[in-house]
Amino acid sequence: MRNIKLIIQYDGADFSGWQTQPGKRTVQKTLEDILSKILQEKIQVVGTSRTDSGVHALGQVAHFHTKSKIVTHKLFRALNGLLPEDLSVHKIQNVPLSFHAQKNALRKTYHYRIWNNVAHHPLQRRTSWHVWKKLDLKKMRIAAHYLIGQHDFAAFRATDSQTKTSVRKIYKITIRRGEDLSPSEKISPLHIIEIIGDGFLKYMVRNLVGTLVEVGKGRWKPEKVKEILQSKDRRQAAVTAPPQGLFLHFIKF
Amino acid sequence: MRNIKLIIQYDGADFSGWQTQPGKRTVQKTLEDILSKILQEKIQVVGTSRTDSGVHALGQVAHFHTKSKIVTHKLFRALNGLLPEDLSVHKIQNVPLSFHAQKNALRKTYHYRIWNNVAHHPLQRRTSWHVWKKLDLKKMRIAAHYLIGQHDFAAFRATDSQTKTSVRKIYKITIRRGEDLSPSEKISPLHIIEIIGDGFLKYMVRNLVGTLVEVGKGRWKPEKVKEILQSKDRRQAAVTAPPQGLFLHFIKF
Repeated sequence: MRNIKLIIQYDGADFSGWQTQPGKRTVQKTLEDILSKILQEKIQVVGTSRTDSGVHALGQVAHFHTKSKIVTHKLFRALNGLLPEDLSVHKIQNVPLSFHAQKNALRKTYHYRIWNNVAHHPLQRRTSWHVWKKLDLKKMRIAAHYLIGQHDFAAFRATDSQTKTSVRKIYKITIRRGEDLSPSEKISPLHIIEIIGDGFLKYMVRNLVGTLVEVGKGRWKPEKVKEILQSKDRRQAAVTAPPQGLFLHFIKF
Repeated sequence: MRNIKLIIQYDGADFSGWQTQPGKRTVQKTLEDILSKILQEKIQVVGTSRTDSGVHALGQVAHFHTKSKIVTHKLFRALNGLLPEDLSVHKIQNVPLSFHAQKNALRKTYHYRIWNNVAHHPLQRRTSWHVWKKLDLKKMRIAAHYLIGQHDFAAFRATDSQTKTSVRKIYKITIRRGEDLSPSEKISPLHIIEIIGDGFLKYMVRNLVGTLVEVGKGRWKPEKVKEILQSKDRRQAAVTAPPQGLFLHFIKF
């Protein structure tokens, strides 16, 4: 038996997220079907993060067991040849049988992209959230500071989230300007919020971003984030930011 | 009478190019319809470049005349509020009546993006040409050098191109690495070919790129580009590179 690790990239727009669900087009199911076809055995893929519908990935990780002796570079080519254009395998490698994509993940990095301009951007619309009102990044950074460390993030999880504990640790949140595609802008209106943590609850990153944006718009004071966190009440936080701005960027093992 | 200049951005995927054609969705027609609605008079828009179907723009320029007294920032908001999500107005300004978007254009900058990797990239596929075989950028740069200056580019124009003269001047061609979105790549597989010229024939940029890629793949020697140019025969040059990699980037007046 072999264990194979994949680094996977996808455009989330036309997927109902990672996890297999009856009658839906998901990343996991698409991968399993094509791997089973190539390897001529039933393949089960374990992914690190169950990304939601519409969320993108540049560094999703997964592993699967196989009896096949196929060399990895052949599998790499066969796989990318058969995968649809919105899903690709970026890296493939043999790993010890002990490697587990979920259990061995130490840190996950997500990026959230915000297009902060009056005019929408036709070529950023599929990969960012368009926020009209000018955001105060300084205030957002102060607010973000309250989220660092180990906390009970119950106020920021989806109402239907079923995990036992809502305690998670956030290592770092940075907010920086991304590279704008436009030639005539002096300051790029593209903001990238990078969040690194040991794990995230359902909708947690998008709920955190939605709340930081309320602060950036000046509707809430930065200190309100601390109050929301302490309330452990989902109704206190802002609306969930839309999925197309979110990227599963990198996973550290 | 006023003259108004627009800088326009679009995702070319769902447009049949710039120029109005019966029964087709074009950028010019979409702009004219919405401007006519806002300003309550028939508006005719003159664009600098007649970009082809599927080609993107970050810095397309256009002008139009109007009797309206609407202030530009109100027009800017109204326009972007009504334009579809794949088309936006980036800048808007009052200009002298003498300004003409076609006649006054001095230089046009196009960018062509190539994703040069074995694996396709789900999030670059709409904005680049996926070329599997590793390109030799040094050879491409040597080949590009033969194209600089004033030449008869008949070998690189579309067979149905109807302009009187096929003499054009290319000021500069640079090939550099773009910013890759992936966290695990050391060298970005995204190449950006920047071409600056006084004007371009139909399909000319894409035919030049197609030819440079043949050189980069090692199929043709760099010197062949000189021969193709001198032949003035379209059948000598390579196939036309696909439209989704091409961006009208900037126009200098």
